[in-house]
Amino acid sequence: MGTMTNTNPVRGTRDILPNEVALRDRVQQSIFDTYKSWGYSHIEIPCLEHIELLQSGEGGENEKLIFKVLKRGEKLDLHKPDLVENDLVDCGLRYDLTVPLARYVANKVGNIDLPFKVVQIGPVWRAERPQRGRFRQFTQCDIDIIGDTTICAEVDLIAATADSLSKIGFDDFTIRINDRRLLHALAEHCGFPDGLHDKLFVVLDKIDKIGEIEVKESLVSSGFEAKSTDMIMSLLREIGNECDLSVYNRILKGNVHAEVLQDMQFVVETISSLSSNAYRIVFDPTLVRGMGYYTGQIFEVSYKDYPFSIAGGGRYDKMIGKLIGKDIAACGFSIGFERVITILNEENNKNPDEQKIVALIIEDEEQLITTLHWARQLQKQGFYVSILRRAKKHNKQLNALYKQGITWVSYARPDGSHTDVEPIRLRDSAVE
Amino acid sequence: MGTMTNTNPVRGTRDILPNEVALRDRVQQSIFDTYKSWGYSHIEIPCLEHIELLQSGEGGENEKLIFKVLKRGEKLDLHKPDLVENDLVDCGLRYDLTVPLARYVANKVGNIDLPFKVVQIGPVWRAERPQRGRFRQFTQCDIDIIGDTTICAEVDLIAATADSLSKIGFDDFTIRINDRRLLHALAEHCGFPDGLHDKLFVVLDKIDKIGEIEVKESLVSSGFEAKSTDMIMSLLREIGNECDLSVYNRILKGNVHAEVLQDMQFVVETISSLSSNAYRIVFDPTLVRGMGYYTGQIFEVSYKDYPFSIAGGGRYDKMIGKLIGKDIAACGFSIGFERVITILNEENNKNPDEQKIVALIIEDEEQLITTLHWARQLQKQGFYVSILRRAKKHNKQLNALYKQGITWVSYARPDGSHTDVEPIRLRDSAVE
Repeated sequence: MGTMTNTNPVRGTRDILPNEVALRDRVQQSIFDTYKSWGYSHIEIPCLEHIELLQSGEGGENEKLIFKVLKRGEKLDLHKPDLVENDLVDCGLRYDLTVPLARYVANKVGNIDLPFKVVQIGPVWRAERPQRGRFRQFTQCDIDIIGDTTICAEVDLIAATADSLSKIGFDDFTIRINDRRLLHALAEHCGFPDGLHDKLFVVLDKIDKIGEIEVKESLVSSGFEAKSTDMIMSLLREIGNECDLSVYNRILKGNVHAEVLQDMQFVVETISSLSSNAYRIVFDPTLVRGMGYYTGQIFEVSYKDYPFSIAGGGRYDKMIGKLIGKDIAACGFSIGFERVITILNEENNKNPDEQKIVALIIEDEEQLITTLHWARQLQKQGFYVSILRRAKKHNKQLNALYKQGITWVSYARPDGSHTDVEPIRLRDSAVE
Repeated sequence: MGTMTNTNPVRGTRDILPNEVALRDRVQQSIFDTYKSWGYSHIEIPCLEHIELLQSGEGGENEKLIFKVLKRGEKLDLHKPDLVENDLVDCGLRYDLTVPLARYVANKVGNIDLPFKVVQIGPVWRAERPQRGRFRQFTQCDIDIIGDTTICAEVDLIAATADSLSKIGFDDFTIRINDRRLLHALAEHCGFPDGLHDKLFVVLDKIDKIGEIEVKESLVSSGFEAKSTDMIMSLLREIGNECDLSVYNRILKGNVHAEVLQDMQFVVETISSLSSNAYRIVFDPTLVRGMGYYTGQIFEVSYKDYPFSIAGGGRYDKMIGKLIGKDIAACGFSIGFERVITILNEENNKNPDEQKIVALIIEDEEQLITTLHWARQLQKQGFYVSILRRAKKHNKQLNALYKQGITWVSYARPDGSHTDVEPIRLRDSAVE
């Protein structure tokens, strides 16, 4: 390790300074507490997963972005003829919290009671091309209900997530909701072959990002018929402007189960009743979502004019079954933690920590014993303390402390006593 | 992904169930709050680090246990002649929180004020042979003070860590303390060559685990002189029984700076004064610690007869300098989070969550709207709630809820009202 060592973090990851971490911690704690108040239990799943699981097809595009981990010891054979990548690796870092949860449930199925309501908050990794606001390690925050086939699960997830978003300072957000079964009916009506619907949905999901024309081109060049493509695009445009279930009924003429439409109506009405206009829920027939695994209702939360959603989720009743050979119903909602932090930072809606932190200033270590006892008294009164030696440039020191959020001070006197805790008064205008 | 998919977690890692996670969360939150009350700021560092940093030599034996991450895209060349492991990897998972912290400080040196007091809690990974109680992903909990050359740093770290351990239910623990400079003086006195002291210390550290005879054999077979080896072992035995600094003075006859001995005395006296006999601090001249990077005082915390320490740390003033070419003083203390959890589990000292969780039982989804409003009222009163459909075997359902820690219940009535919240009364003796 020479003096020229690269001290940057790994490309696409970042070192986070205390002020930003304090915001992240407060937001995380608030989300976590809210979800717990709705009966979700916290579980821990390791960050590494078997490479076979990560590449099982459930991860969609994310499967191309896996950080793969080299085999260790004798298992690693560099001299194998015709070496390919997967000869070298046996596990990788998770790219989401959903695929690992399906494995966890499959593994622990005898030890948990259904319905199983869980919350997870933790890092995931994707080797995406680094770009502004996108990181290769980022935090996800998911809730899931396992083993509830009824619409109660969707309502619970949406109510709890809306409450979480409200508690961290978001209001006036819009929950958009659709159902994959409606999209399937639409695709069938337009003549798309059954087995290719999921592929169709992955491309359709990109309309917001790349626009209608490029989506159409992409579909046609993927081998879909131009006629079907034109038809579904114009239908989506037509019903998209109405947000009205009856349009579906009219166009598809009974091709959709009444139950699907009733469930949609029920969720929209129930959540609307709960929201008291603090936020909105709307049926959005153009909502698709990118993952292949959804089987029923899907939802997303938009906020103001931000070009990304701040939360998303849906029902995925088939994923666990693929692991254990027996279907277990599942439904989840994920808050885009990093996006939420970005917005809170931009809106300066930081909800600052109210904790009083006191700098206890000593001249030398002889004052340490009495100051430690003084510190303990202050802590019992609810203060946080930080014992510090007086710097030669004491005003500069006070300025720096103030910027760190340490805004109170008390000084050790030579006789072992201390001055009263008082606010730091800055001598110059260096305060930001 | 067939039905035969391996649903176990990656070898050596584990899926943790809600009850254990609840304990882990409580302990983590308590440690975290205590450290914050001592003025430590939380920082976040990515879990991946450049492979060069992880293999720089500062990680000691841990460098053999790295989970290495495969290069991605064009950077990966499987056809390179004479392929070796390090051609394939560019980063790896951190094996501790100290080496990444040194890099973080080097990277952020212009953005932070010294002294910089930080707390980190997070996962680290080591590909150790799996054995009972050892896991390949585990949580570490470190505090560090960067940029304080004085003994105030050691005192602060020890006081804060002792407070953290007390707050999570440990009492009567013993802090053992030594100084690498005393060990160097001893090694010099016994004729060990200067440059080989660190190697010597790594082996000496294993006395507790493998015994005096094996350590002696290991040293001699590593090329150390049998005479020096015998001498240091018998000296350690002699002074080890006394825990008395004056013995050092007598044996080494002024070979040790007076300041080192004074500092030792000062720390022991200061912390003893603070402890009020709730815990002990003792000078232990046989304490070595395994890492090569320590430069001054070192400390460990033992508890009852447990054969492992529950915390450890020390001063490492040279590590950051190796990265940026300019020394910055550093001193740290790490709580063995997993060991602490193991002990709390064994002692059944779980300090259960006092939170009242109420099961809100509904017959069907028509009752959902009124129950959601009822849920919100209860949440405002401080209850946690979980809305659940009545199961056919309702007594079994209540038993299962009780085991999950949901011990209160309220029922939706057909008229939209709800029964009062009352404790779950179990019909049979299935309660554990």
